[in-house]
Order: sequence, then C-alpha cells, then structure tokens
Amino acid sequence: MSTAPTPLTIRDAVEVARQRVGDDPARAVVHLRTEARMGDGTRVDLRAGAFELGADEPPSVGGTGTAPNPVQLALAALGSCQAITYRYWAEQLGLRLDGVTITVEADFDTGAFFGFPGSTGIPSPQAVRTAVTLEGPEPDYDKLIATVDEHCPVLDLFTRAIPVERTVTTA
Amino acid sequence: MSTAPTPLTIRDAVEVARQRVGDDPARAVVHLRTEARMGDGTRVDLRAGAFELGADEPPSVGGTGTAPNPVQLALAALGSCQAITYRYWAEQLGLRLDGVTITVEADFDTGAFFGFPGSTGIPSPQAVRTAVTLEGPEPDYDKLIATVDEHCPVLDLFTRAIPVERTVTTA
Repeated sequence: MSTAPTPLTIRDAVEVARQRVGDDPARAVVHLRTEARMGDGTRVDLRAGAFELGADEPPSVGGTGTAPNPVQLALAALGSCQAITYRYWAEQLGLRLDGVTITVEADFDTGAFFGFPGSTGIPSPQAVRTAVTLEGPEPDYDKLIATVDEHCPVLDLFTRAIPVERTVTTA
Repeated sequence: MSTAPTPLTIRDAVEVARQRVGDDPARAVVHLRTEARMGDGTRVDLRAGAFELGADEPPSVGGTGTAPNPVQLALAALGSCQAITYRYWAEQLGLRLDGVTITVEADFDTGAFFGFPGSTGIPSPQAVRTAVTLEGPEPDYDKLIATVDEHCPVLDLFTRAIPVERTVTTA
C-alpha cells in the first residue's frame, strides 16, 4: 500500500526552493521546452512538458478550427500568469485573496499577418489591456498589485524585447 | 437536409479577406479577448473564444499540476505561431511544404519570480531559441523563412516591447 506524499503549500514550496538555491542564484534557473508539430490544415499539435494541447485557426481564415489560435494562447498565457503570480505573492505577503479574474484584450492586425498593403506592419497584438478583479477582505491590495507586476513572467515577456535565436534545418 | 459549407482553402480565405479589407486597412484589425479565473490551488481556468483550457504550476513548487504553466503556454504560443505562419506563407508564396516542426527552448529564472536575492531580476523567459525543421521538395526555403520571421505575430510579440495597460478592481 502506498501513501501519496502530502502536497507542499505554496509558502513551504517557496521556502524549500529558497533553501535549495542557497547562495548560488544560478541554481534557480530552470530549462523549459515545448514542441510544435504541424498537423492537417492549420492544426498544430503541441507538447509542453507532460501536457498536450493544440493551436489552430478558425474556418473563416481557411483554418480547421479545432483549438485557440496562437495569439489567443499568448493572451491566455498572460492572463493565467497574472492570476498565478497573484496567488504566489498573496501567500508570500501573507494576504488573504479569495478570488482573481483577469480579462486580457488586444487588437490584432490580420493585415500585418497576411501582408496586406497599408497595414500597420506590426503583426503582434497591440493595445493590450488587462482588467484584474481581486476578491478578498484585505483593506488594501496596492503592495500586492505592484509586486505582481514586477514579478509576473509573461507580463515581463510582453513588455520587454526578448531576443529569439533561431536555427532552421531542411529535411 | 443541410449541407455543410465547403471549407475555404487558405489561399481563397486570404483572398476573401483581402477583398473585404479593400482600401481600408483598419478593417483588417480584429479584437481578441481571453478570460482567466483562479480555481483551486494554482489552477487557472481559461477561456479563449469558444475554447477552454487551463494553466497550473507543478507540485514541486506547491502547485496542483493539472496543466502547463503560463511560461510554457507562452512558448507553445510561439512554436504554434511559427508553424501556422509557415503554413500560410508557403501557400501564399506557392511553395510546397510537407512538414513543419518547431522546438522552443528557454531558461526561466524562478529566483526572479519568487524574489530571491541575487536573481537576474528578469522574470521573463531568457535565452529563447527556436529550432525549425522544414520538410518538402523545394530547392530553397530562404524567402519563406525570412517572410515568416517578418510576419509571425508571436515572434514579433517576443522580440518587441509591447505596452500593457492594466486596470484593477477590488470586490
């Protein structure tokens, strides 16, 4: 008979990580890897760690419509990252937080993607805006809000220019 | 008896979009919206258009481990966006492309997320590198590769600093 390990609380897990990293900050750096494989039509099968998911385009633009499109995935990454960062930092700051919802909206210039004349020439989502709703009994969440925006990985990814190194192999 | 509409090919769909936009490039701009709602533990339930998906953190950092984490979602967005942009632009350039696979790798400094002393202070994924494998009979994919990198929305999102406007409501 096996016994499932007791899950770590967030605060305990962060403390374990802090001890493990100790005086060598490089030990806190982890390696992430995802794979994307083109399927039928515009379907893409994705693997991220142990998880499988998909991306696709809607039939209105000739797609096969089985999954969110990649820009929607990027906005979902931002919304979920904000929510999770609120969870971790509320724990670390000792604040009670009963609910977090985030909407992320953006304008997307399909003309820049398709290469239409007169487009903005900027294919990334623009005018990105988030609306955060926090539920809880604390009189003031200002410090939490500022701390989350400082530490949120995907918010930093959006607002910072990140170099991408690319190699191509033809088979 | 109903008849399903014949799906548009990518090339026809792009031509329909081009006609619809006509001489007003603003008509090519679409609005995207996703919602993220904190669930139990670190689970986040996401809605992107008609699709539902999740994000989470692994048990090793106190998470509930039901889905990829937000940074993995962001890397998956990049890989799938590259793949789909290859599909669209191969069609537009009249090139045959039989297969596309993309791996996306990055380093992620958990110390910057948790706020450990001596961290890089940069919570976004760093040293992002993509490896693209193209399969097909064409003698040369150079023009396709350059065109994809110019038009890929999520690659542009990574490499460009995108302002994010944020509002917070406490309930």
